[in-house]
Amino acid sequence: MLEDVLAAADRAARPWGQRPPADRAAALTRVADALDAAAETLIPLAQKESHLPDARLRGELVRTTFQLRLFAERLTEAEPDVIIDKPDAEWPPGPRPDLRRMLVPIGPVAVFAASNFPFAFSVAGGDTASALAAGCPVVLKAHPGHPELSEATGDIVRGALAVSGAPDGTFNVVHGEELGKELVLDRRIRAVAFTGSLRGGRALFDLAVSRPDPIPFYGELGSINPVFVTEAAARERGAEIAGGYVDSFTLGAGQFCTKPGLFVVPADSELATLAAKRVRERAAAPLLNERIARGYADTVGTLGAHGEVNTLVAGTDSAEGPTPTLLSTTAEALLADPEALRTECFGPASLVVHYRDNDELLAVARSLAGELTGTVHGEDTDEVARPLLDELVERVGRVLWNGWPTGVAVTYAMQHGGPYPATTAPLHTSVGTTATARFLRPVAFQNVPQHLLPEVLRD
Amino acid sequence: MLEDVLAAADRAARPWGQRPPADRAAALTRVADALDAAAETLIPLAQKESHLPDARLRGELVRTTFQLRLFAERLTEAEPDVIIDKPDAEWPPGPRPDLRRMLVPIGPVAVFAASNFPFAFSVAGGDTASALAAGCPVVLKAHPGHPELSEATGDIVRGALAVSGAPDGTFNVVHGEELGKELVLDRRIRAVAFTGSLRGGRALFDLAVSRPDPIPFYGELGSINPVFVTEAAARERGAEIAGGYVDSFTLGAGQFCTKPGLFVVPADSELATLAAKRVRERAAAPLLNERIARGYADTVGTLGAHGEVNTLVAGTDSAEGPTPTLLSTTAEALLADPEALRTECFGPASLVVHYRDNDELLAVARSLAGELTGTVHGEDTDEVARPLLDELVERVGRVLWNGWPTGVAVTYAMQHGGPYPATTAPLHTSVGTTATARFLRPVAFQNVPQHLLPEVLRD
Repeated sequence: MLEDVLAAADRAARPWGQRPPADRAAALTRVADALDAAAETLIPLAQKESHLPDARLRGELVRTTFQLRLFAERLTEAEPDVIIDKPDAEWPPGPRPDLRRMLVPIGPVAVFAASNFPFAFSVAGGDTASALAAGCPVVLKAHPGHPELSEATGDIVRGALAVSGAPDGTFNVVHGEELGKELVLDRRIRAVAFTGSLRGGRALFDLAVSRPDPIPFYGELGSINPVFVTEAAARERGAEIAGGYVDSFTLGAGQFCTKPGLFVVPADSELATLAAKRVRERAAAPLLNERIARGYADTVGTLGAHGEVNTLVAGTDSAEGPTPTLLSTTAEALLADPEALRTECFGPASLVVHYRDNDELLAVARSLAGELTGTVHGEDTDEVARPLLDELVERVGRVLWNGWPTGVAVTYAMQHGGPYPATTAPLHTSVGTTATARFLRPVAFQNVPQHLLPEVLRD
Repeated sequence: MLEDVLAAADRAARPWGQRPPADRAAALTRVADALDAAAETLIPLAQKESHLPDARLRGELVRTTFQLRLFAERLTEAEPDVIIDKPDAEWPPGPRPDLRRMLVPIGPVAVFAASNFPFAFSVAGGDTASALAAGCPVVLKAHPGHPELSEATGDIVRGALAVSGAPDGTFNVVHGEELGKELVLDRRIRAVAFTGSLRGGRALFDLAVSRPDPIPFYGELGSINPVFVTEAAARERGAEIAGGYVDSFTLGAGQFCTKPGLFVVPADSELATLAAKRVRERAAAPLLNERIARGYADTVGTLGAHGEVNTLVAGTDSAEGPTPTLLSTTAEALLADPEALRTECFGPASLVVHYRDNDELLAVARSLAGELTGTVHGEDTDEVARPLLDELVERVGRVLWNGWPTGVAVTYAMQHGGPYPATTAPLHTSVGTTATARFLRPVAFQNVPQHLLPEVLRD
């Protein structure tokens, strides 16, 4: 079965990659239309398997089909990424030949779906959309958290592609952990995209680079998404910021890769108290599945038991799921034991970090590993803002000012990535239109006559 | 000592990365000028250590300083690579924030110099030039083949950078294999560029991806650079093609990563005979060093001893170095034992492969692993050209028509790369102006006020 899927993907690579961009765009649009049309089938399935609320899932489906259409738009509207050097006999180191560079699809891509966005980062999510847009067949490894939804979505994608004339094997869904490993090791797979845990992603990364022929592995793994509040901002807008923080870290029951896991605030501010008050008002919300609920309980338990951590609000658990947990520590403690206190906690918990002065604030920023996002709440007059942003730019993929990292806009300029452990590929993004770059490889044509050049390179 | 170099590179990263592009361009130009001015010191050193002829080394130095100036030109003349999304309340999946994306330097880069181009792929070569242009400090691991030249070149580069106001630690040269490994594993090194053998490069790649925080490894490893001659071309221009082939594979005593190692020609053509005649006229030329001479003798010996390989011209060895060796086999034999017969042989030897028909020609193309280049000698009317180019585009970084792969022009459109084992990073090039992309990482700024934005992102 896997063999059939891989052989079909391999056969589909050239015809799908050579389809004119407008044809691929039409196919992606048809996939989007088909998914929208199936909303009343897909949403209940997603709800049953993910426990996420109806409104959230409807919004996520809109985002997912918008994303497919945005990649389609780029295929037809963006300037093709080509460089043409005409021959130049006067070129200083010696006569220059005719050289024309374009990007070609890398070949079949294995995509590992995530659990927390059953539409936007799953079967028809950003990785699939960007790989198909780039001209690469996709073998999608379904997340075990929503198998039925994955099959149903996969059928719709496959059907819409078939109607659009895409070759057999352009898209298929497979299941199972062992089979996922086989995928990563198969010589016909030319790149891997993964969204999930640090542990799972690193294991697959290690496989991909262990191959006789290592391949690019685009893993979006984990992030703690620190939020820094300057003294001036805490003074001016303390209640508003504390409220926004709680809203952000409890959104989707805290199951976002951009959830703010560290809230770095002045020690003499009221922010922790204000946030704790808001947290106590929050209702329970179910987690995605049993495995995630167990992992969450373990991580929160370990973090809360740390000698330098105080529990400001202890979440309770019930059949409706956990209520949020708020913990606190000091910058000094974080700097002394960063490995333990910088743990990502997937679920509705976050850690307030109290700093005494701007030196400590900057030291916390400098202690960060790679992050998807780094946020500053500050005032225009803050002198610490510039050095703080300098530290963040070197460590994160997206820098936010007076905002919240949850909610990753699907746009042209979005960067959803960052140095390890945020991702395994710091030069790339998994959200936004530049996500296709992960699956495109440059080829230069030297003195190739017009009739043999790909159309985009001709005069 | 290494600790001092790494600490200095780490300290230099921000000030060097934040220097305005025009300042970095001026520094690169000054490095180029200083190297040109030191030609009469550097050339004799290079000649002594590499045994390469004076004229070749002078040409290579011209290429090297041209390359530095070309990166400088890009820094001042190219449009900055930014994407700006203004806020949009009507953005379909929800209001879009202000998002501005730019590229930032990845941080200190370790560069491993090659032996075969003591200027263009060594201390001040393309990897160094592109990393410095990108705003990254460079720790250069010198090749043991030319230690004195490396020190002399390094002193000039460092001196010119210092005069340009570059921070201490922007560039340093280190020596020794063990120390090279320490470099790759050090947390302050954020990317590695390497040009050299498959074995050496793979060992360092394995180290880079084994780190607790894996980093990008840009290895340019090895290639056999197949040249295909169609039946029509063999008929029309046999003598010219055979001559060009011998010139190309013996250039620089065959010590080029783009040396044509496979010459795939019609079995019923005279090409092998014509090439053999030309090879016999060739004089001996010294190899770079003892280690390479031993490796060459071993590889040629093994290849020549293969049961399906005939020796058309047996090279002889003397104090002046080896004369070229020409071997031949059949497409059938190559397809039956590709691992043995597709061996890269670094030095003046090449393998003629006889095909019986176009099916065999295409089968040879399909059997290729990743290659830096693939060349076709054909006629405009050749029907096999299109399917042959299709096979090559999927496997190589540069496709040539009626030309020779040796001689890699330094231009905007050049692609010097390819799927593994040609390189460890198929999305990138080590020659041409897009080589800087290896050392630049995207960062998006969300709702960051004008006065805190990097200048290039402001309105």
